[in-house]
Amino acid sequence: MSGGALGLRAAGVTGALGAAGVAAGAHAGLAHGQEMDAGGHEGMVGQHGGQGDVDLSKFDPSKFLRDFYWGEERQEGGRTVREYELVAEDVEIEVAPGVFYPAWAYNGQVPGPTLRAREGDRVRVTFKNRGAHPHTIHFHGIHDANMDGTFELVGPGQEFVYEFDAEPFGCHLYHCHVPPLRKHVEKGLYGAFIVDPKEGRSEADEMVMVMNGFDTNFDTENEVYTVNGVAFHYQRHPIQIKKGQPVRVYLVNMTEFDLINSMHIHANFFDYYPTGTKLEPTEYTDTKMLAQGERGIMEFTYGRTGNFMFHAHVNEFAELGWLGFFEVEE
Amino acid sequence: MSGGALGLRAAGVTGALGAAGVAAGAHAGLAHGQEMDAGGHEGMVGQHGGQGDVDLSKFDPSKFLRDFYWGEERQEGGRTVREYELVAEDVEIEVAPGVFYPAWAYNGQVPGPTLRAREGDRVRVTFKNRGAHPHTIHFHGIHDANMDGTFELVGPGQEFVYEFDAEPFGCHLYHCHVPPLRKHVEKGLYGAFIVDPKEGRSEADEMVMVMNGFDTNFDTENEVYTVNGVAFHYQRHPIQIKKGQPVRVYLVNMTEFDLINSMHIHANFFDYYPTGTKLEPTEYTDTKMLAQGERGIMEFTYGRTGNFMFHAHVNEFAELGWLGFFEVEE
Amino acid sequence: MSGGALGLRAAGVTGALGAAGVAAGAHAGLAHGQEMDAGGHEGMVGQHGGQGDVDLSKFDPSKFLRDFYWGEERQEGGRTVREYELVAEDVEIEVAPGVFYPAWAYNGQVPGPTLRAREGDRVRVTFKNRGAHPHTIHFHGIHDANMDGTFELVGPGQEFVYEFDAEPFGCHLYHCHVPPLRKHVEKGLYGAFIVDPKEGRSEADEMVMVMNGFDTNFDTENEVYTVNGVAFHYQRHPIQIKKGQPVRVYLVNMTEFDLINSMHIHANFFDYYPTGTKLEPTEYTDTKMLAQGERGIMEFTYGRTGNFMFHAHVNEFAELGWLGFFEVEE
Ligand SMILES: [Cu+2]
Ligand SMILES: [Cu+2]
Ligand SMILES: [Cu+2]
Repeated sequence: MSGGALGLRAAGVTGALGAAGVAAGAHAGLAHGQEMDAGGHEGMVGQHGGQGDVDLSKFDPSKFLRDFYWGEERQEGGRTVREYELVAEDVEIEVAPGVFYPAWAYNGQVPGPTLRAREGDRVRVTFKNRGAHPHTIHFHGIHDANMDGTFELVGPGQEFVYEFDAEPFGCHLYHCHVPPLRKHVEKGLYGAFIVDPKEGRSEADEMVMVMNGFDTNFDTENEVYTVNGVAFHYQRHPIQIKKGQPVRVYLVNMTEFDLINSMHIHANFFDYYPTGTKLEPTEYTDTKMLAQGERGIMEFTYGRTGNFMFHAHVNEFAELGWLGFFEVEE
Repeated sequence: MSGGALGLRAAGVTGALGAAGVAAGAHAGLAHGQEMDAGGHEGMVGQHGGQGDVDLSKFDPSKFLRDFYWGEERQEGGRTVREYELVAEDVEIEVAPGVFYPAWAYNGQVPGPTLRAREGDRVRVTFKNRGAHPHTIHFHGIHDANMDGTFELVGPGQEFVYEFDAEPFGCHLYHCHVPPLRKHVEKGLYGAFIVDPKEGRSEADEMVMVMNGFDTNFDTENEVYTVNGVAFHYQRHPIQIKKGQPVRVYLVNMTEFDLINSMHIHANFFDYYPTGTKLEPTEYTDTKMLAQGERGIMEFTYGRTGNFMFHAHVNEFAELGWLGFFEVEE
Repeated sequence: MSGGALGLRAAGVTGALGAAGVAAGAHAGLAHGQEMDAGGHEGMVGQHGGQGDVDLSKFDPSKFLRDFYWGEERQEGGRTVREYELVAEDVEIEVAPGVFYPAWAYNGQVPGPTLRAREGDRVRVTFKNRGAHPHTIHFHGIHDANMDGTFELVGPGQEFVYEFDAEPFGCHLYHCHVPPLRKHVEKGLYGAFIVDPKEGRSEADEMVMVMNGFDTNFDTENEVYTVNGVAFHYQRHPIQIKKGQPVRVYLVNMTEFDLINSMHIHANFFDYYPTGTKLEPTEYTDTKMLAQGERGIMEFTYGRTGNFMFHAHVNEFAELGWLGFFEVEE
């Protein structure tokens, strides 16, 4: 892995990131007159310009947010089968404006597609490895040992079909399980896997948020943090939600290197369902910490219009990209 | 930030801290004959003397512990309004005997005052910035976007009035939300915010404990850890409680730099209410971890007299100041 | 402490550990044809050979797993008294094949014996210190202040008898509480302490898992991670369980230096009981994070035969030894 040039590029742009990160008043959606003078605060004027945006035609976190991959549905012997295709590729992704990262990615994107099924559906995932290293897909779920993605390495150019029943219902995830584990996870081979209860869930504006980080200078620490793959994306492009509309967030932590990550929403509280496996919430809070592999469902409703921040309540992560806004409208 | 002189001073005294930290037998309240020979243990004799105390006339964590700031109460149009005043100041505080830290503080103290209201009260907080940097107050609670302390920076010499209904009931917090977030939090701009349920809570000996740390040599790591602002304060001055008396602790974690902090009480267990937003506890334990911004309510009763330690179950934090005692008497 | 030689030895073998760690296909029990080509993956060929095993005649985690120390039971005045003996010793232990660590250990093993009693039993622990430093035993439980292991240091050659009623029921722990705390914990003075409810628990295949780490080169970071004291032991010797048989794991985190540790089981989910103090589970998940001193009970049943991995979902810890297998048979 030749990190030199990319590492420098990343380091160079990370400085600007710092300024962009705090420029909460810079996006167009701000409702309030007084812009947050962040660029000028603490001597950051001058680095502020030229933040721009990533190339959204390649991967747009705003589309990813509510994009659920239900697969191709068919009936086989009286039951529902869903067929998905995931392709591992080596691909350069843009994790912040001008900051590129040499990822290993499912379907060319980090996070990978959000797979979704209903409890009891038969899930059939054709996995094609078009990358340069062996990979697998390890699903968090209940399945046979040989469908677990821990033993059957899928070499470059090879395929493997994972098949199992979708259980239990909840908010889960999938990731590559080839050693060294750290490497295959940090490179981006993961995504959310949602299993709906048979009876479904109540109507809501549903979205997925995968918390992660990117080690752009290859020092086994993250320089960039994101939710859904692009630093500050939902600051530049706030998530539009409706006042009074229940929102359901499927929250997954796949951050490598750091022992935990967390989620805080402003001016509101959420019901929290750990792992999403029960229909009763266990907490009503505004801040929740997760270790890697932990995940859950948040449910909340904004009763007021305006722009509301959400971010890691780990300030370093927030400042390095894990920060966004809900824009609540009538 | 010119940390040189202060950093040296801090570093110099931190050595003594190490010894003070382990001298659990040094405080006067110890009931048991055999003093813990901590000073002499592991070659620490000699550094033991001269630990002294901080200047308690400036800030006394023993008073802070049970000091709830209910504001000035008045009736307006048939409802209760509570008016508070918080003033941001640059102030040097003593975080361990002889160890000073150049804080940014609400009302000159770290943690700031513990604001308290009843569910549904109107809360009106006049915020005056007498510091040298712009600041805000971001409350964890439910309120309008323009009362959130994220957009309206309050410059030096300026004022802002935050106003909202106290909801939901629970154990919350407030802190400055000006970027860089890390800086404004590490400097000390935070405090607890308690909202009582309308029906109140059962009678108890109530106290607040804010876990934090201080980066006294400005290396973006904490050298001193405390609960309520002064290292080992409750070791030098054990918290007096009565045998058989229910105790309720409002526990808040605002530790910067470290991803988590934790609380362990000795020889007893507590009911734990995450965020304090429900009336039923979810856990019965003696050790609880919190990320920054997480908080909750602990309820317990000591059925025996004697001195009982409590501290972070992160041993490094305990050794650097986050350790105290309950002194339980008939 | 002269860490030189040992540190080098540890460092030398840690390299091989890295390879051993990823050789998930190397143990004999693998049911699936395609071995995981981990040794050859990512340029690790060549370091793979000679992993061998630790000297299991000295300490065998497979025996420790289900070894509960109920003490010597007798009746005194109509109640059950259980007498235990714990002896602190300085002993060199083998934490990975060829990797030795100069431990301070209860009964010569890390973790110490799993003490077990029934709620309300009188527990009497004779503690003998045959080590070179003062030590204590601090139990997580409810007891008198002078039985807490915080004040009465037990010097080399001395004895102390801890006596208290076993309460509350749950999954607890014990450890030395002599300052510096970090040192006495990192050296290995800890173990699990289980208190059964009076009415007992449902029938299950019960086992204990203590998560920890070893700082083999004395740099205040762990180089080796384990569950039950030996890196990758349950990979070399998978835990045999029966299909359809309920399993109950008493899970304890005593990892020093790292703020959290976690447990993930593959292809299955578990009911989780925090601290084991209530009879209803609070979560149904496959991944759980614990801070030091936190612990709980996991209950699960494998409905399929085969080999199923379990490990920290902190990839670094998994790669450095905290990884094993369940081998599920008819
Ligand atoms: Cu992979
Ligand atoms: Cu501020
Ligand atoms: Cu000890």
